[in-house]
Amino acid sequence: MTVYEFAKGLILEAGINVKKIMKQDIEIETKSNPNDLVTNVDKSTEKYLFDNIKKTYPNHFVIGEEGHGHDLKDEHGVVWVIDPIDGTLNFVHQQENFAISIGIYHNGEPYAGFVYDVMNDVLYHAKVGEGAFENGTRLPEIKDTPLKTSIIGINPNWLTKPRLGDMFKPIVDEARSARAYGSAALEIVHVATGKLGGYITPRLQPWDFAGGLIILSEVGGRGTNLLGESLSIYEPSPIVMANQKLHAELIENHFEKHIETVRLLQNRLKK
Amino acid sequence: MTVYEFAKGLILEAGINVKKIMKQDIEIETKSNPNDLVTNVDKSTEKYLFDNIKKTYPNHFVIGEEGHGHDLKDEHGVVWVIDPIDGTLNFVHQQENFAISIGIYHNGEPYAGFVYDVMNDVLYHAKVGEGAFENGTRLPEIKDTPLKTSIIGINPNWLTKPRLGDMFKPIVDEARSARAYGSAALEIVHVATGKLGGYITPRLQPWDFAGGLIILSEVGGRGTNLLGESLSIYEPSPIVMANQKLHAELIENHFEKHIETVRLLQNRLKK
Repeated sequence: MTVYEFAKGLILEAGINVKKIMKQDIEIETKSNPNDLVTNVDKSTEKYLFDNIKKTYPNHFVIGEEGHGHDLKDEHGVVWVIDPIDGTLNFVHQQENFAISIGIYHNGEPYAGFVYDVMNDVLYHAKVGEGAFENGTRLPEIKDTPLKTSIIGINPNWLTKPRLGDMFKPIVDEARSARAYGSAALEIVHVATGKLGGYITPRLQPWDFAGGLIILSEVGGRGTNLLGESLSIYEPSPIVMANQKLHAELIENHFEKHIETVRLLQNRLKK
Repeated sequence: MTVYEFAKGLILEAGINVKKIMKQDIEIETKSNPNDLVTNVDKSTEKYLFDNIKKTYPNHFVIGEEGHGHDLKDEHGVVWVIDPIDGTLNFVHQQENFAISIGIYHNGEPYAGFVYDVMNDVLYHAKVGEGAFENGTRLPEIKDTPLKTSIIGINPNWLTKPRLGDMFKPIVDEARSARAYGSAALEIVHVATGKLGGYITPRLQPWDFAGGLIILSEVGGRGTNLLGESLSIYEPSPIVMANQKLHAELIENHFEKHIETVRLLQNRLKK
């Protein structure tokens, strides 16, 4: 069995576990602020993924939202970047619209990406060079769209901040419309399926984007920081994910005009 | 057969038609601006609903997005308020996340509401006094939530406008988070199911809210204009739909502080 096949089975099993636990009561714990709810499901799912990866591949590294591998940096070998529940607020308030996300990297290069929309039972998956799939259906290359005919994923929360608002408002005004779904991993795969033209957010952790980025790249999309630079799986970053045309348009016509804000955002997130 | 039973069958049949037409090519026509796409599906679905209502109930009135009954005002008898495709942009860009909406009123009083999430095959429906249902499952009364623990439905587009932004930003900042799904009818039923605490928009047509409002009312929620006044099915209006506690909090702590903006919005939409 390849690592890709193993991961595919593992994420589906993890989803079955999540559904089981959801039928029991959800005990909610509050981390630093009410926007950062963590549930038992989050922790137990990360443990499930971590334990199973380590049992099968003792030499692989794991970086996870709930505390695994936060000290890793530029490891040689295979690194799994996992988010047990992406969209925790949706999980808690809606009991849907959340995903399990896995990105696998080998010697720093992307190998395979998985985003599992658990309640809709849709697995998005891609092995580099072999195309991206929605369950068993191969996703077509995404089409280029200019901003003015694109639907953009961006959370209203970012528009209320003074500097971020100045940078993001003209984008929202020029776009055909905007959406906010509350799960970065799902919003990135919505770009890969063309449901969104692009997705923008000022701060994302590697486990939020690692899986989706590989899927998006496999259909010809582009994901970088707001300077247009490659993303590292060892650092949080501001993010723009889009089809090629829209990505270039956003960088050139918008983010370059706000280079000070972009650098400020970027530096604030450096380790 | 009661009007309620007839309407329930009719909206499901209309959904089947929509799916059929979707398999053919979608010809898109542009109305006044690119945000207002109309498709053949929109027009043919309204015609399908209108013709079938009139065939069975020749004396009933119909108000619809695509041009029916826009001259009606305070009719005696039964009035159907229909939106053949609520969330046209989602329909065009995503081929999902749109709904057919029907609200039925008798001598000015609400009688029954229907919102059909076509691609997920979920029918939300309510007959006044008999509770609201998601397919066959009765929806519980919605719980009161304060703004600070609520997820609010609000489109990022409204935050970029100077006066609207001033009014809406403090709401978004105080809320736990914000979402934007691009279909008013679905966002209103998300309030009815508790997936959103509230939904706010500065301009909505009667066909966008007539069905959802009846469903929301049946689970104890409240929908009014931003002054807290009842909505008319003959006029567009700014809208706030929420659980009772959140509705009161939004009116008292937010909209009353911006009474000039609220009155301006309201008057601009008067016939």
